[in-house]
Amino acid sequence: MNRVFNFSPGPSALPEAVLARARDELLDWHSSGMSVMEMSHRSKAYVALAEQAEADLRELMAIPAHYRVLFLQGGASGQFAAIPMNLLRGKQRAVYLDTGLWSDKAIAEARHYADVQVAASSRAAHYTTIPERADWDIDPQAAYFHYTSNETIGGVQFQTIPTVGDLPLVSDMSSDILSRPLDVSRFGLIYAGAQKNMGPSGITVVIVRDDLIGQALPVTPGVLDYRKQADNGSMLNTPPTFNWYLLGLVLEWLKGQGGLAAMETLNRTKADRLYSAIDASGFYDNPVDVRYRSLMNVPFRLPRQELEQPFLDAARKAGLVNLEGHRSVGGLRASLYNAMPLAGVEALVDFMGEFARTHG
Amino acid sequence: MNRVFNFSPGPSALPEAVLARARDELLDWHSSGMSVMEMSHRSKAYVALAEQAEADLRELMAIPAHYRVLFLQGGASGQFAAIPMNLLRGKQRAVYLDTGLWSDKAIAEARHYADVQVAASSRAAHYTTIPERADWDIDPQAAYFHYTSNETIGGVQFQTIPTVGDLPLVSDMSSDILSRPLDVSRFGLIYAGAQKNMGPSGITVVIVRDDLIGQALPVTPGVLDYRKQADNGSMLNTPPTFNWYLLGLVLEWLKGQGGLAAMETLNRTKADRLYSAIDASGFYDNPVDVRYRSLMNVPFRLPRQELEQPFLDAARKAGLVNLEGHRSVGGLRASLYNAMPLAGVEALVDFMGEFARTHG
Repeated sequence: MNRVFNFSPGPSALPEAVLARARDELLDWHSSGMSVMEMSHRSKAYVALAEQAEADLRELMAIPAHYRVLFLQGGASGQFAAIPMNLLRGKQRAVYLDTGLWSDKAIAEARHYADVQVAASSRAAHYTTIPERADWDIDPQAAYFHYTSNETIGGVQFQTIPTVGDLPLVSDMSSDILSRPLDVSRFGLIYAGAQKNMGPSGITVVIVRDDLIGQALPVTPGVLDYRKQADNGSMLNTPPTFNWYLLGLVLEWLKGQGGLAAMETLNRTKADRLYSAIDASGFYDNPVDVRYRSLMNVPFRLPRQELEQPFLDAARKAGLVNLEGHRSVGGLRASLYNAMPLAGVEALVDFMGEFARTHG
Repeated sequence: MNRVFNFSPGPSALPEAVLARARDELLDWHSSGMSVMEMSHRSKAYVALAEQAEADLRELMAIPAHYRVLFLQGGASGQFAAIPMNLLRGKQRAVYLDTGLWSDKAIAEARHYADVQVAASSRAAHYTTIPERADWDIDPQAAYFHYTSNETIGGVQFQTIPTVGDLPLVSDMSSDILSRPLDVSRFGLIYAGAQKNMGPSGITVVIVRDDLIGQALPVTPGVLDYRKQADNGSMLNTPPTFNWYLLGLVLEWLKGQGGLAAMETLNRTKADRLYSAIDASGFYDNPVDVRYRSLMNVPFRLPRQELEQPFLDAARKAGLVNLEGHRSVGGLRASLYNAMPLAGVEALVDFMGEFARTHG
């Protein structure tokens, strides 16, 4: 076995220790004589496992008691519909900030349920920045304000939590949840597909303030109704049990690493190392407004597009994989989620230096 | 490691060979240097894996070309909403047959979208039978007819496909899909959560006739819109990649076992063995109309309720686990899905005989 450094934007690299643990207990979980994926979700052992994952997430993120934590199916894309369905609460209007392709998708889906006010958009700037706060247009009577804390494709990330008056703040944190400490009490709702920083795809975390739920539209599918899921411990129906278990293993690993403060330090170190190398190279280029450069996803370009394939081929030979940029924007991209060790970034920086010297 | 015989109704036992394969390649799939759950769902290797699973399912079930096969999230419970949302096609009414707790749940969810006509119900018979066909009331102008081919809780199973005139026939086959050959062309739509006969929980298969899709209600979440998912190879958003992979391994295993005809023979043998032992015991009792006894889920009772806990404790010691009946009906239940070997049923029958002798 020869593990590579995997810079995939998602589904993404997982901690090797987590995978090794899952492998070792795959046929016989805790001497139960069966795999964790063969267990009833109603069994005492499985319910304890699921509750431990929630407790660990609450501890890691310091989630206040008046927030519910839900483990759902359908991905962040499912939440693009579930959020207006659950949070409009008799109102018609919701405010969305447009900072990239993911906020764009959230807006398109929300329009099926709500009158969407786009507070501001960085589309004209090719999504390389975040619109200045002074230019945001916010209807104070709207049901909530939605933004994407990290745009996986553009590599644009909020470095602070925006202020939006009294509107419940809703954020898609799929690609930067658990990457740094966060003041959860500033939010009405936080959601994230697991497949970047939390675990495998197929499970989605929703953290929602208790007073916001219970007024879902009548057309809300039961499995996406926050109140119904909250009242049933996210087991209104059979949850994705193995995904939940793996997510729990990742949370346990994170605690062992020192929690979110330690992760932030590591993530800043990794990103600084890569951005510094890009900026100093005179060869590579990152197009993003330096104030909003993502610590998670680093898109970059070569001086000539025809060098991309040779770069990718040589990188793959060096054990550095999944560096292709998103098909919608091209170029290259390195995703540096929690599970990417510093050694992986150092190997990438060394490789990029060598490639620039031989192709400059 | 000491594997047990696991009679769980779902999530359920998986073939040991499938689990061993998943374990062996968990950190390094096909010399890729990464786990299959760390791969992008857009990568060539993963797309090939996903397409192979669909091809294997089409081969096993002989699915005609004019049917689409979707791999979705949200479970069969998510489909309880998705089906009316997608299949009403401008109509108001849908017909549902009520044969147990699962059809009951499907009906309750459908009422949020449709005028539900209940064709007939076996509720008054405590869901131990299927209403006589002559007594079904079917509006020929309705959008579709829905039934549950196997009631996991009641242990009631259709032995033939019902005739319902020209209405598209829709069936929840969560607990008996792949257990026997099936004429898919008789159906408008078949759906099944994977966690009984197909794989782990967290992935749901929908097989739908192509002409029925494309007219979803405007409030249908994109992730549950059959047309959008069909147009995107079930990758409108990130699918549950590891679950899909495991489902593929189960399908490959099924082909190696001789396909659905071989499974039916095995499943009949297993069920006959258990029902014969129950009927001959003068101790155990199965309450279901013999015409509709399920080959998958065998509920049974002891002569005195206070024997249940001693039975379960002794069974567990003998390596026979998860024999509790559903909390809504009590008693005991043995689920005999594809992955349960004949040896497991023989061990159960031997144990039951011994228990009856010592407690009779």
